[in-house]
Amino acid sequence: MIMEPCVAVLERLSADLGCSPVSRELAAELDRRDELGHLRQQFFLPKVADLPPSDLSLVDGSQECIYFVGNSLGLQPKSTKKYLEEELEKWAKLAIHGHTEGSRPWAWAEETIEQLMGKVVGAKPEEVALMNGLTVNLHLLLLSFYQPTASRHKILMEDKAFPSDHYAVESQIRLKGHDPKESMLCLSPRPGEDTLRTEDILEVIEEQGDSIAVVMFSGVQYYTGQLFDMEAITRAGHKEGCYVGFDCAHAAGNAELKLHDWGVDFACWCTYKYVNSGAGGLAGAFIHEKHADTVRPALLGWWGHDRKTRFQMNNVMELQPGVHGYRLSNQPILLVAPLQASLEIFDMTSMSALRCKSVLLTGYLEYLIQHYYTRDPCRPDHPHVTILTPRDPQQRGCQLSLSFSVPIGRVFLELERRGVACDMREPSVLRVAPVPLYNSFNDVHRFVELLGASLIASGSQK
Amino acid sequence: MIMEPCVAVLERLSADLGCSPVSRELAAELDRRDELGHLRQQFFLPKVADLPPSDLSLVDGSQECIYFVGNSLGLQPKSTKKYLEEELEKWAKLAIHGHTEGSRPWAWAEETIEQLMGKVVGAKPEEVALMNGLTVNLHLLLLSFYQPTASRHKILMEDKAFPSDHYAVESQIRLKGHDPKESMLCLSPRPGEDTLRTEDILEVIEEQGDSIAVVMFSGVQYYTGQLFDMEAITRAGHKEGCYVGFDCAHAAGNAELKLHDWGVDFACWCTYKYVNSGAGGLAGAFIHEKHADTVRPALLGWWGHDRKTRFQMNNVMELQPGVHGYRLSNQPILLVAPLQASLEIFDMTSMSALRCKSVLLTGYLEYLIQHYYTRDPCRPDHPHVTILTPRDPQQRGCQLSLSFSVPIGRVFLELERRGVACDMREPSVLRVAPVPLYNSFNDVHRFVELLGASLIASGSQK
Ligand SMILES: Cc1ncc(COP(=O)(O)O)c(C=O)c1O
Ligand SMILES: Cc1ncc(COP(=O)(O)O)c(C=O)c1O
Repeated sequence: MIMEPCVAVLERLSADLGCSPVSRELAAELDRRDELGHLRQQFFLPKVADLPPSDLSLVDGSQECIYFVGNSLGLQPKSTKKYLEEELEKWAKLAIHGHTEGSRPWAWAEETIEQLMGKVVGAKPEEVALMNGLTVNLHLLLLSFYQPTASRHKILMEDKAFPSDHYAVESQIRLKGHDPKESMLCLSPRPGEDTLRTEDILEVIEEQGDSIAVVMFSGVQYYTGQLFDMEAITRAGHKEGCYVGFDCAHAAGNAELKLHDWGVDFACWCTYKYVNSGAGGLAGAFIHEKHADTVRPALLGWWGHDRKTRFQMNNVMELQPGVHGYRLSNQPILLVAPLQASLEIFDMTSMSALRCKSVLLTGYLEYLIQHYYTRDPCRPDHPHVTILTPRDPQQRGCQLSLSFSVPIGRVFLELERRGVACDMREPSVLRVAPVPLYNSFNDVHRFVELLGASLIASGSQK
Repeated sequence: MIMEPCVAVLERLSADLGCSPVSRELAAELDRRDELGHLRQQFFLPKVADLPPSDLSLVDGSQECIYFVGNSLGLQPKSTKKYLEEELEKWAKLAIHGHTEGSRPWAWAEETIEQLMGKVVGAKPEEVALMNGLTVNLHLLLLSFYQPTASRHKILMEDKAFPSDHYAVESQIRLKGHDPKESMLCLSPRPGEDTLRTEDILEVIEEQGDSIAVVMFSGVQYYTGQLFDMEAITRAGHKEGCYVGFDCAHAAGNAELKLHDWGVDFACWCTYKYVNSGAGGLAGAFIHEKHADTVRPALLGWWGHDRKTRFQMNNVMELQPGVHGYRLSNQPILLVAPLQASLEIFDMTSMSALRCKSVLLTGYLEYLIQHYYTRDPCRPDHPHVTILTPRDPQQRGCQLSLSFSVPIGRVFLELERRGVACDMREPSVLRVAPVPLYNSFNDVHRFVELLGASLIASGSQK
């Protein structure tokens, strides 16, 4: 039902073409019609031959690989090197003068791209700071937003949050003198279900809201790919007097975020996944402008000082309002330049256009997976796939988490030998993320073909 | 008196050469004898013509500039670009597989250089973590080491600490519910003196030690260039039951540090100054191994988890011992690579050899400054210079802070027009740092010549 629009598109188009909806022809036509297809040219797509696990007796090494792990590490924009070289040349030629010269003066380089970053997450530039790593930022934010009292001391989060978030919350609760056993409220899906229902989240907030200090979910769950209803969660949290924050590691550059419009209190994200800034790239932090003058950073550093007077060095703090006051250290130019390279590609389109493609691209993957791997009582030996990710496109980003009826370890190795990069979680889950910025419908089609070959090669399918 | 050895060297050598100790000939001879002189070739020295303020009607633009601000931003190692390009190529070709491939697998790249970093600061590799920025690390360390009680709640530091350290300490004290007015014990030099006397520091520690939780000095004071007696301060602090930490921003790669041997409890430093990693480069943190199993991080993240089991993602923390448990976020490979480039140059020599050259190089600068700018009652109009930095080489690194009897603003501009990069603090102080890794005796001689020309051109000297 919920998939209808996507299925309808695929079936109408294949009928028009007079081909099967699972044929390669349809993928080619979808790519021809893809108005964002040219953006792939902005990135380096690894060649099959270059990926260490590839087996060139099985697959043409000169092809581009199927890169479906942009949810873990985004591809490199072709302009990254140029921007880095500009900064290296500035350093070599101007050295100290680089702090104030060029298009990215090092002393405020990160501020030159906060507007672009803001567009990607739906925030005003003054609500965004680019700094540190994600977990560092999460801590800086929680130090302000988590102010437990005897009666309101809980942090509500997912039971299977990303480990770093789990540890961060646990340690923040301890730091404030509370006991994680009492104060960490971890929400699990209903028995037999894989993802949380929004209604259940909202119900817990309503029921326990007066003991919850902070509601902290991910935007998109890293394991299941579930996209939470951030707007509804924020509204429900606020109704009960909680602060509401999101870890947008898997949401930034993937889902259409409106952090400002939704009134989210705080958020953080990394940029090396869907934002393609390179391993360990500069992370982001968001604080809504409504808190600009009221929520203060717990920890201070000179980079939070008003830039106009920062270098007078008189040790009298003039704090920048909002999230900019949370800056501690000066930012690394060698991380700002690559992030700019990527954000400029986002700026060639819009998150709503990307999202539009993404819904179709991931819907197409879902369609093919369902076509080949729906459980069929007549073929009990045939492997089948359960999609852990919600079927409703509104409740997911581009990633699908596929749970196989067979152990997936060897299948994964066979996929890798065939030039597929995706993520495997033992015993039986593949996480696959067709990224609308650089993946094609043909990638999806080839992936499903290679999955079939891999299931056979591994002996999982006869 | 204290300068004797250096003065003696200069005067003996010039006597041997039959030249004046202030002649250019002596500088040339000192460079010929400099066994570390070849290290300059490892760096890009900006050309005079490339520096924005240079006036090519006054000076030959094809010359290398006089770069005396390595205390602010170190020069670029020539291998930086190659190392960065290796990582960019890995990203372009292997993408996600870069996490485990190549000589710097991104998932533990920073660990590959902690040994080199340890050598520079006198620490074991397991006592060093490369992560974040300096101020961020200072906070992470203070969150553990500053555990105030009602009776022991003070942090002892310099009165004119670097602003970021001042703000960091102030905010830590507030975070722990104390009042900076009561708990921030800021030590000033005696009236009429420019730098702190070790005896006075030790006396305060002895007198007030039982109310001091943490003694936190810089290794080398950013403004005066004073090198503190870290060993004696550490010993005195420990005797009174205080933790002792140092901000080594201006000491790492400048002074010979023995953080481990001195029993320092914790330290942090940036690497973009004397360690030449580029603006905003990866910072360092040190915790002595004696605390490995007892002092725990207050804030946790997945990068502090034992690497062998980190990616099992079961949300049960297996904390790495010591400072490695303080890691929160995964580290940026684009900052690790340049830092490695620089650390490998340090590894071509030793801190003791560098220090040996440094004492002579800075002593030579001092000698020339004294020769030309000692106060002369017979020439009341002639500008003279007071050296704020201690005269004892044991109490300073390479930097001299020169206080002029005349306003220095216009002189500084004239220096800049002549291809000198140094630092000015209104109204009358120049900070000048001849860095033994890449500066020459000829640089020092030319600087003093150009200083003379600049004083005349600015009308400060007749
Ligand atoms: C002594 C000292 N502390 C702290 C800092 C701040 O460093 P960061 O911006 O890397 O945190 C500096 C920077 O110059 C410094 O010299
Ligand atoms: C949801 C989530 N939170 C936190 C992190 C940790 O990020 P970092 O190492 O950048 O702090 C990740 C990284 O993959 C993540 O996916």
